[in-house]
Amino acid sequence: MIRAYAAHEAGGKLKPFEFDPGALGPDHVEIDVAYCGICHSDLSMLHNDFHMTACPLVPGHEGVGRIAAIGKNVKHLHVGQPVGLGWFSESRMTCPQCMSGNHNLCGSAEQTVVGRFGGFADKVRCHAAWAIPLPDGVDAAKAGPLFCGGITVFNPIVQFDVKPTDRVGVIGIGGLGHLAVQFLNKWGCDVVAFTSSESKAGEARRMGARHVVDSRSDDDLGKWAGSLDFLLCTANVPLNWDAYLAALAPKGRLHVVGAVLAPIPVNVFAILVGQKSISASPLGSPQTTAKMLEFCARHKIAAVTEQLPMSRVNEAMDHLKSGKARYRIVVKHDF
Amino acid sequence: MIRAYAAHEAGGKLKPFEFDPGALGPDHVEIDVAYCGICHSDLSMLHNDFHMTACPLVPGHEGVGRIAAIGKNVKHLHVGQPVGLGWFSESRMTCPQCMSGNHNLCGSAEQTVVGRFGGFADKVRCHAAWAIPLPDGVDAAKAGPLFCGGITVFNPIVQFDVKPTDRVGVIGIGGLGHLAVQFLNKWGCDVVAFTSSESKAGEARRMGARHVVDSRSDDDLGKWAGSLDFLLCTANVPLNWDAYLAALAPKGRLHVVGAVLAPIPVNVFAILVGQKSISASPLGSPQTTAKMLEFCARHKIAAVTEQLPMSRVNEAMDHLKSGKARYRIVVKHDF
Repeated sequence: MIRAYAAHEAGGKLKPFEFDPGALGPDHVEIDVAYCGICHSDLSMLHNDFHMTACPLVPGHEGVGRIAAIGKNVKHLHVGQPVGLGWFSESRMTCPQCMSGNHNLCGSAEQTVVGRFGGFADKVRCHAAWAIPLPDGVDAAKAGPLFCGGITVFNPIVQFDVKPTDRVGVIGIGGLGHLAVQFLNKWGCDVVAFTSSESKAGEARRMGARHVVDSRSDDDLGKWAGSLDFLLCTANVPLNWDAYLAALAPKGRLHVVGAVLAPIPVNVFAILVGQKSISASPLGSPQTTAKMLEFCARHKIAAVTEQLPMSRVNEAMDHLKSGKARYRIVVKHDF
Repeated sequence: MIRAYAAHEAGGKLKPFEFDPGALGPDHVEIDVAYCGICHSDLSMLHNDFHMTACPLVPGHEGVGRIAAIGKNVKHLHVGQPVGLGWFSESRMTCPQCMSGNHNLCGSAEQTVVGRFGGFADKVRCHAAWAIPLPDGVDAAKAGPLFCGGITVFNPIVQFDVKPTDRVGVIGIGGLGHLAVQFLNKWGCDVVAFTSSESKAGEARRMGARHVVDSRSDDDLGKWAGSLDFLLCTANVPLNWDAYLAALAPKGRLHVVGAVLAPIPVNVFAILVGQKSISASPLGSPQTTAKMLEFCARHKIAAVTEQLPMSRVNEAMDHLKSGKARYRIVVKHDF
């Protein structure tokens, strides 16, 4: 039996919950969850904001721990190895996207907390391809947030070939944004943080932002017109899109990774004159995740975390909801 | 004096008009206009749809003819050489965009029919960099449309590295679309034409489309879900954007070159799951235009044109407005 925390109705409290996971599949692994990050998507899933929540819901898709068991076909991992598991827990492996290394774009990718049970538990399972080994130099206690928040912002840097000579903006300095600033700083970029929080300005600078802009001020946004080669939006609320599109340099790209629910109204002339692009992406592939972890180890990049015991997971969820987390909450297994 | 056809009020008829262009600038050339294509943007300028029309307005930005005079600094062109002139007539040459080969993205690019006089005239002038030589094998009588309509759709193929193995859609089979289909066919792509006109289906196939889709049918659009690597929109009216975004394959791009005036509402989840992009672009650089002309000569690509004498330019404009032109109108100098 696996012991977990589950919600039995949308928006409900998480309560102790046990389930029998059955026999371990031949291509799967079981992970002893030591730590699990909490992502805003866990809140969204709890409240069924994405219209794909099934109850009982066991949230948690930033799990880190040692492998407890491996299926009989799994050769590249071993019991006892520290690994992490993010939003995706399985993909087809033989479809054109998986065969191209785009496992995160697999049309049948299984999601860790959708229609199955996630990481707020003592154990979690996944296809072996999606259990990514933690390299030496990555602290397991702080690694969880890398597997969703981290890879979500690292992946576009790789996908769109962001260059060290680029000026790159990050909108929103939270769980995702504070990692994006660190990545981009070590990537060699000129980093501009856009935040509505005065208290985060100094921290954003310490994490590697060379410039911090008050995103509430249209005047301040206006000063950056035509200057950003890449602009990563980690916010999940409607913004002054016209001002951000204007902030892009010619051939610049606004890339959205926040789950913005309202459509973005794109004025064609605003992107036509400077050949600008707008795009979005989900997480990253296992291979890109492995690259990110190696980059983190080499550059000593880590999430800034607040740790609570998993038994206080409801308190942790409320703290996330309050917007006061600095910057990512991790729950530690304690039962 | 230069003799031209000008509108003296927005939406007015074009009437004979003479003006003194002054001394030829040292970096400029004067072209004897033999032919000038008519673009939908000429209609838009006539009606001040872009809010940048100044009267008297001499439209015409697809001019082709021989060089009549060159400025004293011009070394790479000679009098008598056949050239073409498109939407842009000058750029800074030393700004970062021009210095990167992106002259069409120059923030100070001069536009042939904005604040100066265009090609519905016996002569037209431009900076020498924007007078692009016609190579052997390109018919001057049909070349005009390449300099705006042609380069507008050829440029994104180059900019976004469209591959011969890609499946590429073209929305709208008109002045731009009929050239896009020809380019993409010779580029080696699997070409899908989206048109609301039954009468154009057979012609689109003859021009190189392997598939033709009735764009009025949501059911037909739906059959292409997830299949297009690149989708070029040459229409300038609101479309079923959700269906076209759904038609993109993972990592696919919807690229807009039509002057769509109403904002495109972009649902973030619709582009996030498959890492899709939306973009737009204006024309192309002189160098990309030269590449296009060489490609046209080598592959015998030409606009399908209807020719009228320039003295009947009002009739030509009305014919364009009627939507019945097949596919691009060219007026021939006759005075």
